[in-house]
Amino acid sequence: MAVVEYDGTGYNGFQIQPEGTSTVQGELIRVLSTVLNEKVNFRYAGRTDAGVHAKYQVINFKNSRDLDVPRILWSINSLLPDDIAVSKIEKVSPSFDARKNASLREYNYFVVNKEYQSVFLKKFSILITRKLNIRLMRRAARIFLGVKDFGSFCSSSCLSCNTVRKVFKFIIEKTADDIIIFKITANSFLYNMVRILVGTILEVGIGKRNLKSISEALEKRDRKLAGKIVPAKGLFLTRVEYLR
Amino acid sequence: MAVVEYDGTGYNGFQIQPEGTSTVQGELIRVLSTVLNEKVNFRYAGRTDAGVHAKYQVINFKNSRDLDVPRILWSINSLLPDDIAVSKIEKVSPSFDARKNASLREYNYFVVNKEYQSVFLKKFSILITRKLNIRLMRRAARIFLGVKDFGSFCSSSCLSCNTVRKVFKFIIEKTADDIIIFKITANSFLYNMVRILVGTILEVGIGKRNLKSISEALEKRDRKLAGKIVPAKGLFLTRVEYLR
Repeated sequence: MAVVEYDGTGYNGFQIQPEGTSTVQGELIRVLSTVLNEKVNFRYAGRTDAGVHAKYQVINFKNSRDLDVPRILWSINSLLPDDIAVSKIEKVSPSFDARKNASLREYNYFVVNKEYQSVFLKKFSILITRKLNIRLMRRAARIFLGVKDFGSFCSSSCLSCNTVRKVFKFIIEKTADDIIIFKITANSFLYNMVRILVGTILEVGIGKRNLKSISEALEKRDRKLAGKIVPAKGLFLTRVEYLR
Repeated sequence: MAVVEYDGTGYNGFQIQPEGTSTVQGELIRVLSTVLNEKVNFRYAGRTDAGVHAKYQVINFKNSRDLDVPRILWSINSLLPDDIAVSKIEKVSPSFDARKNASLREYNYFVVNKEYQSVFLKKFSILITRKLNIRLMRRAARIFLGVKDFGSFCSSSCLSCNTVRKVFKFIIEKTADDIIIFKITANSFLYNMVRILVGTILEVGIGKRNLKSISEALEKRDRKLAGKIVPAKGLFLTRVEYLR
């Protein structure tokens, strides 16, 4: 298996597309196949959308020969474009599946809450100039903890029949520099779920929505009762864990 | 006065150049003059070189009318290019001089010390794959503390007659993610001084130079006795302080 990080700005999402659209998976398949000198295909832990970034995406692939890991890592990174890097390669059992075996995924969402957008965070966060009520947003986040039906909090194009997920942790940090980081972990996520959850909580933060409306949205399973989806560029896949 | 941040990657340094070279000062003069509707010129705290970044550069300018600060800040940032932002504007006394009144300047230099270069730090750090001896580098940094003659640690094109500077603090931090940050504060710096100091200490870190050679270099005032200069892209101007 390999751990991959990428700046998703220039890609049409992680998953490979037909017709030569630029995707992270497409680039990885091209470079891995070249370096390993055989056609490589792989499975992955989280399907990130167009514009979403990853600090820690996990993939797994099979190859026929034994690998000299440090050398292979170096070759792969020298062939990958500037906005994708492989940070780790590890041998795993043949039955390992990066998606099915993942027991936990973490996403972070970055919001800059000041009068100007930082030059260094522009590509990786959204700017909200209105002062956000962090204490109230934290109370809103706690409503989502545990096993809940997130039917209202996924895009209507969400094909999953089962919209029940378990949220392990949902914390909202604020740095000294007025950057607000939403950190959420769950067993898995529905399509656009993190971005809709963050959008809903931000509506609480600016006083446009109360806490009661969140509990209602959870009960009713109706996308229209949740908040607006926030832009992809603030979102990072940051961790995937596996049962050993 | 205004506080400015910029990603220096695309600029030929801070200071305005003749012949329309792209500089941070050039962009700021253009936008400030437009927004304030009069020809604006300014002084600044630190002259950063081509490729060097700033989280906190200070400039001061005069203008004939009273400013509506939040409105002006917003207008300026909407006209500036994506890689320059003004984070603060404050009224100061007419005698304030961003360069002369500065009593302290801080620079940070970023080194990624692992097997691969992070996608998100590529533009803002250098990669050293060889394991660095942090403890020894910290001892090297301490040699530079206090009032010293830095004649060996500035570029030969350095025109300053007086090469004595006072280094208040020089610490080396290492994050959990193997990023090494050199943080140095002094009353002021000679031309290329931070980058030559970091280059010299890194030679200690990889075992190519001993601590005694540093004391010797300080005594002899000879550029050839100091280490190689490190690339501009890892350097940030991070703070400027003024006596009140």
